Amino acid sequence: MSLQKRDGRLHLGAFIYYAGHHHAGWRHSESGAENMFKLPYYVELAKTAERGRFDMLFLANLLYVQPSEGAANGMLDPVVVLSAIAGATGKLGLAGTISTTYSEPYNVARAMASLDHISGGRAAWNIVTSQLDLEALNYGREKHPDHALRYEMAEEFTEVVAKLWDSWGEDTLLLDRAGGRFADFGQLKEVDYKGRWYGAKGYLNVPRSPQGRPVLIQAGSSSQGQGFAGRFADVVFTAQQSLESARQFHDAVGDQLAIAGRARGSAKIMPGLSPIIGSTDAEAKRRHEELQELITPAMAVEVISRFVNYDLSGYSADQPLPQLPIDLVASSNGMKSRVQLFMDLAYNKKLSILELGRIFLGARGHLQFIGTPERLADLMIQWYEEGGCDGFNIMPPVLPGDFSLFVDEVVPILQRRGRFRQDYEGDTLRDHLGLEK
Amino acid sequence: MSLQKRDGRLHLGAFIYYAGHHHAGWRHSESGAENMFKLPYYVELAKTAERGRFDMLFLANLLYVQPSEGAANGMLDPVVVLSAIAGATGKLGLAGTISTTYSEPYNVARAMASLDHISGGRAAWNIVTSQLDLEALNYGREKHPDHALRYEMAEEFTEVVAKLWDSWGEDTLLLDRAGGRFADFGQLKEVDYKGRWYGAKGYLNVPRSPQGRPVLIQAGSSSQGQGFAGRFADVVFTAQQSLESARQFHDAVGDQLAIAGRARGSAKIMPGLSPIIGSTDAEAKRRHEELQELITPAMAVEVISRFVNYDLSGYSADQPLPQLPIDLVASSNGMKSRVQLFMDLAYNKKLSILELGRIFLGARGHLQFIGTPERLADLMIQWYEEGGCDGFNIMPPVLPGDFSLFVDEVVPILQRRGRFRQDYEGDTLRDHLGLEK
Repeated sequence: MSLQKRDGRLHLGAFIYYAGHHHAGWRHSESGAENMFKLPYYVELAKTAERGRFDMLFLANLLYVQPSEGAANGMLDPVVVLSAIAGATGKLGLAGTISTTYSEPYNVARAMASLDHISGGRAAWNIVTSQLDLEALNYGREKHPDHALRYEMAEEFTEVVAKLWDSWGEDTLLLDRAGGRFADFGQLKEVDYKGRWYGAKGYLNVPRSPQGRPVLIQAGSSSQGQGFAGRFADVVFTAQQSLESARQFHDAVGDQLAIAGRARGSAKIMPGLSPIIGSTDAEAKRRHEELQELITPAMAVEVISRFVNYDLSGYSADQPLPQLPIDLVASSNGMKSRVQLFMDLAYNKKLSILELGRIFLGARGHLQFIGTPERLADLMIQWYEEGGCDGFNIMPPVLPGDFSLFVDEVVPILQRRGRFRQDYEGDTLRDHLGLEK
Repeated sequence: MSLQKRDGRLHLGAFIYYAGHHHAGWRHSESGAENMFKLPYYVELAKTAERGRFDMLFLANLLYVQPSEGAANGMLDPVVVLSAIAGATGKLGLAGTISTTYSEPYNVARAMASLDHISGGRAAWNIVTSQLDLEALNYGREKHPDHALRYEMAEEFTEVVAKLWDSWGEDTLLLDRAGGRFADFGQLKEVDYKGRWYGAKGYLNVPRSPQGRPVLIQAGSSSQGQGFAGRFADVVFTAQQSLESARQFHDAVGDQLAIAGRARGSAKIMPGLSPIIGSTDAEAKRRHEELQELITPAMAVEVISRFVNYDLSGYSADQPLPQLPIDLVASSNGMKSRVQLFMDLAYNKKLSILELGRIFLGARGHLQFIGTPERLADLMIQWYEEGGCDGFNIMPPVLPGDFSLFVDEVVPILQRRGRFRQDYEGDTLRDHLGLEK
């Protein structure tokens, strides 16, 4: 584990997901479910994040309708939402997920360069390969490509995008009115890439953006995901349940960075963290129970069946998770590392399907914290100081309320302890993250 | 020609293109070329359009770098820009171009539904099929598909998009907190479409948007384009040089609407109009000459060679356009109708390449007006009253200056004469255009 390039301060992302990350969070009386498809909901959340001096606001991107009437559904295009909040914010990084499996490199390069321009250098692309056959079907395809193939495609895709971003240099745009030269074509660098899956011959039709290359985020923690992160990622999102596993992951990504010839520490590792805060531990616990009661046994059975890709509808929610076919993880075409993590948890702790469901549905496999702001700050600082992470991606269970609470109650403690910025010191997301331009 | 569904008032679009529609407009001292890649440039233009009570602001979408150092280059993703100005405006329609040839139906359906949500029902999609091999190369393909094939693909693409928009009904979203039902799945309408080129099986992951279906715009005036417009278009953009040809076109689209079983007049026809305004005709003429002088002979030869897909570099710019190979238009894989229009103009008026270039580069084949606001209002009203159009897509030669001039000087005249709205009467773009929801 290396601490090089760390300045002692955490990096924070505001992960906005439906009306909260808790599966039943939308049902809570404090959720903004009614406003989820309207602009002010996102503007308010973005302003709260900026008030809290967050590095960035982050949006996921599921390309299907979750087949459950009890689940929140409907996810606006992240690029549309991030573009819409750009003008209402001045410093906040704007991170959006786009799938390499269901997009064209030229379109992604251009959307991100455009977002980077209009936000003055605050764009980030979270590179995912999508997960489900449900997504393939929406795109007129029969099957989602398998895990290994998707990563092979994603590598080519990302290479093409990066080359397109580099096709304009810093000084290519001339705007020489007197000489009649808009651009210096001698400085354009032609992309000429022919891969197995993607290619491009030409130039991006957008001049170099303020960050040059928008920030690249990667969130798959499988071994292939880690290799990909080593080559490309500026930021790595991950789900880690313990400091020990977080440290192992932090080290493993460091190894992959080294293999790719990059400095250890040059990618910021940010585990997800879902905070349930109360002014006392007992109050936080009550808040948690209140949320858990919104999850019905049927919801737990349904969602876990889907997650492990095995029909549990014959089981009572009070039974422990049955022994699942041994080849399940290997054949799982979704988030391999998450499924493995989940099954380990189930068997080690001998949890019932409902208990599992309630753990899982609370934070979708991410670390959940229940307690006071002081204790939460302790935990975050400990993980940072002991090399488990470079910061956290904050996943409030109910939005917008739980996010304001975090900003008002936890951020000031981190700031007082010198572990989080008092104010932005630069203008771009690369500045906030301490990344090279 | 039918006047049914017309309420006596023009519809206006603000067509924003680089720092002006005039080829050399960016060189003009009043252009905003330095700000073209920054948000305030678009916010200011959008606010001007809304102050002028325009139906919509419209953005084009070229997927390549124009191979000329003298041409403006760099075009931000229209969806990014429109999303970014949504929050700064309240009524203005937001129309963006996306190519069916280089996108996925699910992504387009979703981006437009998302824009419609965050803008409260103001989104429009201008459906194009793109034009050049240069664009195909950027997408890793060898050749741009031919004209007929592109339209066949576009029809399938648009059908899939429309079905996806219809997959959620008006009341599908329940948000029933007590009952734990987010959506009523019984009301979801599954898309199950398998075309030759595109398909989808599933649902859009965005609830029905305020307009239900965002407004569809179509801009190809070839016979295939007119057929497409008849089936799908709510608005048709076109280039018309005379009232007579505009009336013929208006009638022809009406015929296509009738063939598709739609009411004549149910698609609004809006020719492009590039206004060069002065307080006297002489002043406007000087303004025009000032602009034309920014076009060099080399610029004219270069751009016209490219447009007609024939190398004219051996010719002097003072010579008339040589007789071009007769099969040129038939083999042209670009904008057929525009090339034909252009060649008719050249031979009928016996214009030199430089003269042609200056006409063409001033408004790219669209109607150019040079004169006083009063005379411009006369012309617009005459075209409307005599059945040439339902409104105009205004193409200011230099942006932002010439657009403010139009809003301040021409709009009040149209309003005084009862030919343009004093204020918005509805909230959505469909409201402004008088279209059915």
